[in-house]
Parts: sequence; structure tokens; C-alpha cells
Amino acid sequence: MAGYSQDKDAIARRLRRIEGQVRGIEKMVDSDAYCIDVLTQISAATRALESVALELLGDHLHHCVAEALAQGGPEAEVKVREARAAIERLVRS
Amino acid sequence: MAGYSQDKDAIARRLRRIEGQVRGIEKMVDSDAYCIDVLTQISAATRALESVALELLGDHLHHCVAEALAQGGPEAEVKVREARAAIERLVRS
Amino acid sequence: MAGYSQDKDAIARRLRRIEGQVRGIEKMVDSDAYCIDVLTQISAATRALESVALELLGDHLHHCVAEALAQGGPEAEVKVREARAAIERLVRS
Amino acid sequence: MAGYSQDKDAIARRLRRIEGQVRGIEKMVDSDAYCIDVLTQISAATRALESVALELLGDHLHHCVAEALAQGGPEAEVKVREARAAIERLVRS
Repeated sequence: MAGYSQDKDAIARRLRRIEGQVRGIEKMVDSDAYCIDVLTQISAATRALESVALELLGDHLHHCVAEALAQGGPEAEVKVREARAAIERLVRS
Repeated sequence: MAGYSQDKDAIARRLRRIEGQVRGIEKMVDSDAYCIDVLTQISAATRALESVALELLGDHLHHCVAEALAQGGPEAEVKVREARAAIERLVRS
Repeated sequence: MAGYSQDKDAIARRLRRIEGQVRGIEKMVDSDAYCIDVLTQISAATRALESVALELLGDHLHHCVAEALAQGGPEAEVKVREARAAIERLVRS
Repeated sequence: MAGYSQDKDAIARRLRRIEGQVRGIEKMVDSDAYCIDVLTQISAATRALESVALELLGDHLHHCVAEALAQGGPEAEVKVREARAAIERLVRS
């Protein structure tokens, strides 16, 4: 089971909304909207994606990492390193 | 005319690809994909959105801001301030 | 004991180097260095700060959060929420 | 003359304050401060550096890029491309 199981519906809804935001940006470009207005919408979509990522990461720490750490052993180490790499990708993107 | 007119088709294509990436993430969540794999795809989509934003910003500086600066007057000042605010939103998102 | 105890010397060294980078940027500004060159050094210092933050965060997950999760109870919940908020500040900054 | 000449004193002051922030973080690490508190201060220093970068970038667009664009020619193109690359480094850092 994924760490986000309990929040799955809410996360799916948020992703569908982001898909709609991106489609809206396509339409803006298609109708030659002003550059700055397109950029504002791209920043909003980027922030929305990051919020979903932070939500997933919280769930992941709370469930998958917590479980591995409770059991201890080499798997715990792997999970922490994996989470750290995912956080790095988020911070750098 | 928008500053990105010349790149319009390429930008539209990139946005459609990002829309597809987001739809792919929805499917991953729907099929309970592993949290870290979902996060990796979200980081990729975020980077892709930022790349489009940087492209649009370059076009905007090159055309809209350049034109306003060449004409001078208060409009030039407005354009620079507006571009600075858009860059700030990008850096902060 | 802090989660970064084992890495304390290395982290202190990296922070001193960043302090030196910032002092270098001050000197660049003082001698009217070209804007873009100053910006390049600021981006480098920002990345270096973020790397230290990611290191600390990894240590924190590995030690403090791991310990709290192993013991369970409300403290575990608090630690995960606190880590999530710290990650959010990093991603947004 | 650098694009930030008029703001030089204010920028120098802000950089000195950031240098002090970094020195404060070193002291926190030296006295085993709690990881999350150290991370909070690193995020604050990162944001402060980014704010200085945005200020410099605004000045650069307003003066150096504006001048090159007003004169036209290949130099204008170079300046816009250079600014775009600096913005990309900021967004990615």
C-alpha cells in the first residue's frame, strides 16, 4: 500500500485541477495572451505541483519511512537516503 | 502580439507534453504507485514548467521589454518592474 | 544531542566557507564588479547553503525523527509534522 | 559603472547582515542547536540572498540591459541571453 492511500482521493482531485491549469495555460498561449499573465499562471501551477509533492512527502515520512525505521535494519537506512534524494530533487527543481 | 509569437508552436507542444505528464502522475496515484516514484515525476513536471517559463521570460525580455526600453518613457520603467516581479514569483515558486 | 553531531566538524567547515563566499561577494560589490558576475556568486552561495540544509535534514531524519518514530506516541507525529514544515520552507526559499 | 551603483550601499549593508546570519548559524551548530532551528535560519539566509539577487537583477535589467537594448546591435542580444542564463541559475538554485 502506498503511503498516501488515505489521501488518495484528495491528491487525485488536486492533480486533475493542475491538469486543468496546464490546459488553461495552453489556451492562453493559443490566444496570444500577454507573456506576464502566462508566467503568473505557470508559477501558480508550479506551486500547486510542489504542494502536492510536499503532501506526498509528508505521507511518505509518516507511513513508509516510519514503518521502516520502526523495524530498523538496513531497509531503514535505504528509506532515509531515498527520502533525502527526493527532497533534494524537490529543492533543486 | 505576444513576445513568444515566434516560439508559439514549440511552447504549445511543450505545454501539451506537460499536460500529459500530469495525467501520467494521476494514473500513477490511481494505481497506488510508490510515493518516491510519484515524487520523481512531479519534480520532472515542475522542472519542465519552469523551463517553459524561462523560455517565455527570455522572449519577453527580448521583445516586449526591449521595445519598451527602446522607446523609453514611463512605460519602460513599468515593464522592467513587471518583469522583476515575474522573476521573483518564479524564484519563490 | 543534535542529529548532526557526527557531521558537526564538516558542517562547521562548510558554513565557514559560505561565510567566506558572502564576504567575497561584498568585496565584489565594493569594487563595482559586473552585475552578472555578482549574481553567479550569489547563486553559488545559495546552492551551498541548500546543500548544508539537505545534509542537516538527512541527519535529522536519520537520528531525531527515527528515534521518535521508533518510540511511537504523539511525539513521533510532532516530529514528522515539524520535518515536513522545514522541508516546505526549504522548497519555497 | 555597475548597474547597482545607486543601490550599492544598501546592497553592501544587506550582504553584511547575511554574513552575520551565516556566522550566527555557525555558532548554533557549534553549540549543538536543534536541527530544525538551524534549518529555519538557513532558509532565512537563503531567502535573504535571493532577495539581494532579485534586487541586483532588477538594477541590471534597468540599467545595463536597457542601455544595450537602446543601442541595439549584437550586444543587445548578448545581454538578454546573459540575463536569461542568470535568471535560470537563480530559479534552479
